[in-house]
Amino acid sequence: MIDQSTICAISTAPGVGGIAVLRLSGAEALPIADKVFNSPKEGKRLVDQKANTLHFGTIKENDKIIDEVVVSIFRAPHSFTGEDVVEISCHGSQYIQQTILQLLMKKGARIANPGEYTQRAFLNGKMDLSQAEAVADLIASDSAAAHKMAMNQMKGGFSKELMNLRNELLQIVSLIELELDFSEEEVEFADRTQLTNLATNISEMIQDLAGSFSLGNAIKNGVPVAIIGETNVGKSTLLNALLNEEKAIVSDIEGTTRDVIEDVINIEGVSFRFIDTAGIRNTKDKIESLGIERTFQKLQQAQVVLYMIDLSRSLKENIARLEEVREKIQDHQEVIIVGNKADVAGKKAIDALLADLPLERNEDICFISAKEQKNISQLRELLLEVSNVANLNTQDVIVSNARHYEALVKAGEAIDRVIAGIHNGISNDFVSQDIRECMHYLGEITGAINTDEVLGNIFKNFCIGK
Amino acid sequence: MIDQSTICAISTAPGVGGIAVLRLSGAEALPIADKVFNSPKEGKRLVDQKANTLHFGTIKENDKIIDEVVVSIFRAPHSFTGEDVVEISCHGSQYIQQTILQLLMKKGARIANPGEYTQRAFLNGKMDLSQAEAVADLIASDSAAAHKMAMNQMKGGFSKELMNLRNELLQIVSLIELELDFSEEEVEFADRTQLTNLATNISEMIQDLAGSFSLGNAIKNGVPVAIIGETNVGKSTLLNALLNEEKAIVSDIEGTTRDVIEDVINIEGVSFRFIDTAGIRNTKDKIESLGIERTFQKLQQAQVVLYMIDLSRSLKENIARLEEVREKIQDHQEVIIVGNKADVAGKKAIDALLADLPLERNEDICFISAKEQKNISQLRELLLEVSNVANLNTQDVIVSNARHYEALVKAGEAIDRVIAGIHNGISNDFVSQDIRECMHYLGEITGAINTDEVLGNIFKNFCIGK
Repeated sequence: MIDQSTICAISTAPGVGGIAVLRLSGAEALPIADKVFNSPKEGKRLVDQKANTLHFGTIKENDKIIDEVVVSIFRAPHSFTGEDVVEISCHGSQYIQQTILQLLMKKGARIANPGEYTQRAFLNGKMDLSQAEAVADLIASDSAAAHKMAMNQMKGGFSKELMNLRNELLQIVSLIELELDFSEEEVEFADRTQLTNLATNISEMIQDLAGSFSLGNAIKNGVPVAIIGETNVGKSTLLNALLNEEKAIVSDIEGTTRDVIEDVINIEGVSFRFIDTAGIRNTKDKIESLGIERTFQKLQQAQVVLYMIDLSRSLKENIARLEEVREKIQDHQEVIIVGNKADVAGKKAIDALLADLPLERNEDICFISAKEQKNISQLRELLLEVSNVANLNTQDVIVSNARHYEALVKAGEAIDRVIAGIHNGISNDFVSQDIRECMHYLGEITGAINTDEVLGNIFKNFCIGK
Repeated sequence: MIDQSTICAISTAPGVGGIAVLRLSGAEALPIADKVFNSPKEGKRLVDQKANTLHFGTIKENDKIIDEVVVSIFRAPHSFTGEDVVEISCHGSQYIQQTILQLLMKKGARIANPGEYTQRAFLNGKMDLSQAEAVADLIASDSAAAHKMAMNQMKGGFSKELMNLRNELLQIVSLIELELDFSEEEVEFADRTQLTNLATNISEMIQDLAGSFSLGNAIKNGVPVAIIGETNVGKSTLLNALLNEEKAIVSDIEGTTRDVIEDVINIEGVSFRFIDTAGIRNTKDKIESLGIERTFQKLQQAQVVLYMIDLSRSLKENIARLEEVREKIQDHQEVIIVGNKADVAGKKAIDALLADLPLERNEDICFISAKEQKNISQLRELLLEVSNVANLNTQDVIVSNARHYEALVKAGEAIDRVIAGIHNGISNDFVSQDIRECMHYLGEITGAINTDEVLGNIFKNFCIGK
């Protein structure tokens, strides 16, 4: 299965830097490096050097010196890919990087495909598929929460546990299939109670994991937040106030996989992604008018809805409009009612609103002045609180990968059929078939079951050089 | 003089990559790294490890794992800076890079200034100043020729030779100054013939070096080329034809120091920079009209002028216009007369032009069809030939640095005064003063003479992390 060729790529970010690193991986990594590397010590060859050592020298093409470099040597199986690996650390000129890369190709290496180093690490048993996928997430992580989640997954996460459960299923299904061979004798090798317990166990775990996906997705891509409200209630001013307070380490999200760049705010390590919506027009027209309908469609994508009202406007109309918005809110969405212009409207208006507006289960309320930047920090805390992300522990098991989610849903359906089947006493061959199906989908997550197509789809989204 | 603090920076290009490298340099590099690095082998410390070794482990902040990394250890004086150096190779997420950087700062390192690693290498005697400057040129090099020149300079280039000549001057000036102490006795310790020979030697070498600056500058920034000619003779078509044939490795020159991005074409490893000029209007007006005058001002910047004529137009007018252009051409400029629409005009028109147009010393001629892309390769070869860059040898001594050029010119003026002074028998103290001045300027190039201000100016243009 494993391509035996030696691969090379520039592994550091594209562009000009102080230094850049090229990687060679494969059986010929050391001999190929020796063809271009020259040590100041005459006759010294990289193939003769110990693992985990550094060597200064020059890269030459014929007699022409390309650069002075430091070469790192890793030997199979103790390397990232599990193969012999040579890293060449050169000056970060694009010309030098490209010239060395082409030189390595001339000497017998081929250019690596995206993610091919990580793919080889997987194929050589250095990590399972879910861990390999976490490498890509780790590289793309641009917030503390996304980083923590990717790191959990890379450290093994839930995939080890799934692997154990799958092995238990394998033992039981083998016994059931053995019964099929002796079907005329009505023997029972597999303990049905044990099977039911195991299946219930797996079903619950799958439900928990699949249930964590919306949180995982929010962490990975940012919690989707919509600010809505009538025109001129101060939505843009609020957004700017939130953005101004931003203390994000990474504000530049260019190069990540998001297609549309939205406003992203980092609050204590959690990314919030603000969905662009048009204002609800301050009109007597029915709320179903076209432009407003579009805003409500966008509203569907939000996990948190900031519904802004201008406290200085008519209380009655504010509440009537809010009632209309409430009809559009889904059960899983959190709403923060933001009373703006609290400084202008005064305590009386606030008290009147609170008296006439009993909050629903999924609602919070706060009072701010967007223009004066008053109470914005309270709103930030509320956002963090309702997003559920802040309480994430290092040990929490979170699914953030759509591929895993889909496999979990299918595995869950199969295992639920197993439970129902045993309960209803259906024939062994159907039970066995459902167990096998569940095992198949669990195996897809860890990579125990994989096809070239699945692997191709996973690794094509990696960056080159990883 | 040397700041004793331990410095840290991200040394690879900014952005997301497979991996990124952070560097620590200074006496505390290893102890600081130990505060954040955790080996899978319990109790293992980096300070106890041998030089030039690699170590796998994790970077932790308290109990939180930031990343799995490989750490490289270099020990003073056998490192780039001459100090203890630790390189941390981590996953290339911006979040991870920034988090590790901040962690290192918390543990006692400070963020490096631009070029500070190279500056320390200079201050620790790992390279002279001219070599240190070559590091920046090497990183910025985006063509084979620029790379070769920077590499020559980094390997020592002319600065070693200047250093030797400067030492010889020092010996002689010491003897002359000794004579001053015994001025009443009219002794002659310094051999005047030897001094004259040495001074002549140095003067010639300086002239050669200073003379190479325009070539060096052309290599570094691209050979400046202007395409001029009447409107609609096919200038844009020619430029496109040249650009289309481009086989440059590096076409993206973003991030280099050029302020204005011009069209750059790479011909066999040499960059040609096309200066944007307006067409000379096809009018009976005197050539001195305003717009045309502006084109001629731009012409001054060009090293090579492509003067295009439309062969299908009147021979007489073509030659008359060329005569006007010739008046504007300076002695050091090369002109390639490009007869366009050769396919339409035919052999007769070409022969007629050649008969009526004796070429001048600095002129070449070729006939093309820009539209049909005929003979473009011949024009490319001519460009390469007249640029003088192609014949650059690995050993050629080329000055490409404006600072060096200025110092050389001043050193040359001083040494020429020495030669004249000896010839005219002026007094020893004046001769000695001129020798000292020459020595001063030669020393500025190699860094034997340096001030914080000079060093600051040089290294501020480096990238951070180098």
